[in-house]
Amino acid sequence: MSKATEIIPPELETEDEAYVIDRKAIAAILYAVEIWDQEKLFELMEPLHPADIADILEQINAYDRRRLIELYDKEFDGEILSELKESLREEVIAALKPSVLADAVRDLESDDVVDLVEDLNEPQQEAILDVLEDSDRAAVETSLSYPEESAGRLMQRETAWAPEHWNVGQCIDYLRNAEDLPEQFYHVILVDPKMKPVGNVTLGRIMGARREVMLRDIVEDLFKTIPATQDEEDVAYAFNQYHLISAPVVDESERLVGVITIDDAMAVLDDEHEEDILRLAGVSAEGSLSDKVLETAKQRLPWLAVNLVTAVIASLVIAQFADTIGQFVALAVLMPIVASMGGNAGTQSLTVAVRAIATKDLTGANVWRVIRREVLVGLGNGIAFALVMGGVGLIWFGSMTLAYVIAVAMVINLVVAGLAGTVVPVLLERIGVDPALASGTFVTTVTDVVGFFAFLGLAAVVLT
Amino acid sequence: MSKATEIIPPELETEDEAYVIDRKAIAAILYAVEIWDQEKLFELMEPLHPADIADILEQINAYDRRRLIELYDKEFDGEILSELKESLREEVIAALKPSVLADAVRDLESDDVVDLVEDLNEPQQEAILDVLEDSDRAAVETSLSYPEESAGRLMQRETAWAPEHWNVGQCIDYLRNAEDLPEQFYHVILVDPKMKPVGNVTLGRIMGARREVMLRDIVEDLFKTIPATQDEEDVAYAFNQYHLISAPVVDESERLVGVITIDDAMAVLDDEHEEDILRLAGVSAEGSLSDKVLETAKQRLPWLAVNLVTAVIASLVIAQFADTIGQFVALAVLMPIVASMGGNAGTQSLTVAVRAIATKDLTGANVWRVIRREVLVGLGNGIAFALVMGGVGLIWFGSMTLAYVIAVAMVINLVVAGLAGTVVPVLLERIGVDPALASGTFVTTVTDVVGFFAFLGLAAVVLT
Repeated sequence: MSKATEIIPPELETEDEAYVIDRKAIAAILYAVEIWDQEKLFELMEPLHPADIADILEQINAYDRRRLIELYDKEFDGEILSELKESLREEVIAALKPSVLADAVRDLESDDVVDLVEDLNEPQQEAILDVLEDSDRAAVETSLSYPEESAGRLMQRETAWAPEHWNVGQCIDYLRNAEDLPEQFYHVILVDPKMKPVGNVTLGRIMGARREVMLRDIVEDLFKTIPATQDEEDVAYAFNQYHLISAPVVDESERLVGVITIDDAMAVLDDEHEEDILRLAGVSAEGSLSDKVLETAKQRLPWLAVNLVTAVIASLVIAQFADTIGQFVALAVLMPIVASMGGNAGTQSLTVAVRAIATKDLTGANVWRVIRREVLVGLGNGIAFALVMGGVGLIWFGSMTLAYVIAVAMVINLVVAGLAGTVVPVLLERIGVDPALASGTFVTTVTDVVGFFAFLGLAAVVLT
Repeated sequence: MSKATEIIPPELETEDEAYVIDRKAIAAILYAVEIWDQEKLFELMEPLHPADIADILEQINAYDRRRLIELYDKEFDGEILSELKESLREEVIAALKPSVLADAVRDLESDDVVDLVEDLNEPQQEAILDVLEDSDRAAVETSLSYPEESAGRLMQRETAWAPEHWNVGQCIDYLRNAEDLPEQFYHVILVDPKMKPVGNVTLGRIMGARREVMLRDIVEDLFKTIPATQDEEDVAYAFNQYHLISAPVVDESERLVGVITIDDAMAVLDDEHEEDILRLAGVSAEGSLSDKVLETAKQRLPWLAVNLVTAVIASLVIAQFADTIGQFVALAVLMPIVASMGGNAGTQSLTVAVRAIATKDLTGANVWRVIRREVLVGLGNGIAFALVMGGVGLIWFGSMTLAYVIAVAMVINLVVAGLAGTVVPVLLERIGVDPALASGTFVTTVTDVVGFFAFLGLAAVVLT
């Protein structure tokens, strides 16, 4: 058993255990691997869902991972690969025997194969495509011809569809005998003679209707088709906004080419959120908890480097007032407060804006009202904290002038924070840059520079 | 037409227009309201989904909102209320005529009514419950007896179920004639004689099977039941992790009491994301873009107040070294750099940890390995930036000693940032506090204090 898993003190276990894989279960699995007991391992892994097995592979260390894969061997299911974080897939695929990999991949649906191979290196991609049957391989290669992160990559090509002039009886007879239906489906898509989708009928309605009822008379009220080139982020938005369960995907001539189901859209929503939350903190969304130290350090370095540049810019502002600080050291003591408050207020505004842009709630229709609101909020809280800090400054350093300087600087910086916190993400979105990625740096640079400049500049004028 | 919507310059429109409601459409709607043309308004609103109408109500100002609701009148659909942000619901409900509200509410499914009334004030809650039929009211009140944000609140009570000993033919005959089926359903839940769910059969399988096949022979491999008291965040996790489409909800004696479908789970996932991302930035998730200035300022104030306290603590550290700063003003110029780098590195670590806790990827099985990794990443990047800043310090101020001081302080602060950024959220989770809510303050306080103390303390020892 690896040392890292042995020494966890029980007090570090989380309270809420729902769906967290039991630490003892992982320890038992690693023990079975340690004593190389394949039968025991199969028995322990049998009740686990592929998603849980993928989580276990992510949580153990690289050495245990390789040994576990080797012992698990032929039982290794293709779905485990689809559920794995991208950053681990190449490592795990490299550890699988070619015959095991081939069996694993052949069981997957076409959309899962696409998701699996799209980010692999060339030789691994080839190895996987080679084991597919010709028809499956063609389906996967067609999907791969759509842009990355598009609906075309996300869809499955197996669809349940029927001509719009059919009645319920014809549809049921067809479904009974069809061979190439998707594993799970919830709607039958009605198409016109040009294969253009014109409506969705739920299986529930079909089941409840008499055989002679026309399918077109029981279509769902709400019907949305998804262009194959649409960004997957917008696909996820549409599913969430309109409570879609499945939606047909169409090519540029509006012909049916596939179908997307809500479980895939939900996974995209979750991924997009991960990307947003990590990007706001200056972390690459490509990384994962199982990455090694060096990789992680490299992923984190660029944003820290950008931050260093902005911090140096703020220092240059301070350096302009070195003489004043030399005379009144209290300024050095108080100046980080103004900058810090501005940075925090700016982060509040920008996070609200970034989230509202992602949910399409911040649009041309309300952007000016939101900007005005954020500026006024900055003004209100600026005045509140100006009074507090003025008081603190007065008591601490006994100088009314200093109190006045910090109060005015606080108001200025919080107003600027509200303004920059909204305008920066809106403009970045406008020029096609992900606001989650870049807003933070811009906004905190602005609040640092304005904070130091307003405070020290005012002090230089008033005190000297 | 309101002024705010008139003056948007076209260059502020977003590039990616998928599913964003056309600004011109909103302008046309507001114009119809302005000239009080009800027929025109109905015509413009007719193609819109209730979720889009809710978005429009959120994006226009309060005056336009009230007038639009008045003119839209009887066409106002109950689903618009379910789709509205919570913070606007009371205002909109108050603006509806009692007869319009009654009609709107009667059309909703029980789970939507629960979601609607649970956060309303007492009189509005009563007004809505009063218009429901007795059986619906009883269903809603039963759901409300479950804890807030639990599966019991999320589920719908209408379910499609069948005894486990039925065959396909019996099931189809039942579904044909049943009156109280849910509007949409995708599985039939098999139950034992004690009403305990024992399996799910998809409608697709039922449709494809011969009438004499036993339902229990075509159940889905994967079957999960959800306890009614389970936290809705865990419900959303289970749907996403196991690709569930619908899952039966059971009471404490494991009897079937309702069903949750994936569209509701997806909405929860999205809400939880919003909560996490806003809480990390110190913004209350209860707020919305349509809140007024005063409300918004009040929501933002508490976290700024906490930040002020931590900023003052950092200032107290600086104050200890006032004499040294008085002698060497360069220290005042450089000290914010060390603190800022620590704050950013800490935010990177803590965001990764908060997200990993939310996705149940950071568990007892790997917490020590992750802590060790974050510390080593801090050490690596600390050394890299120590070299850079040492160089900058040397060139800028021509002092090898100063270069040495800032380099060592940088390494110390980035190591501490990695450590605090992981340990703080893990411990907060352990004691039952949402790590997204409180980690940021703790971690930046630590990195500010350590940053200033290490840099100024070393300087005091070495330079004086």
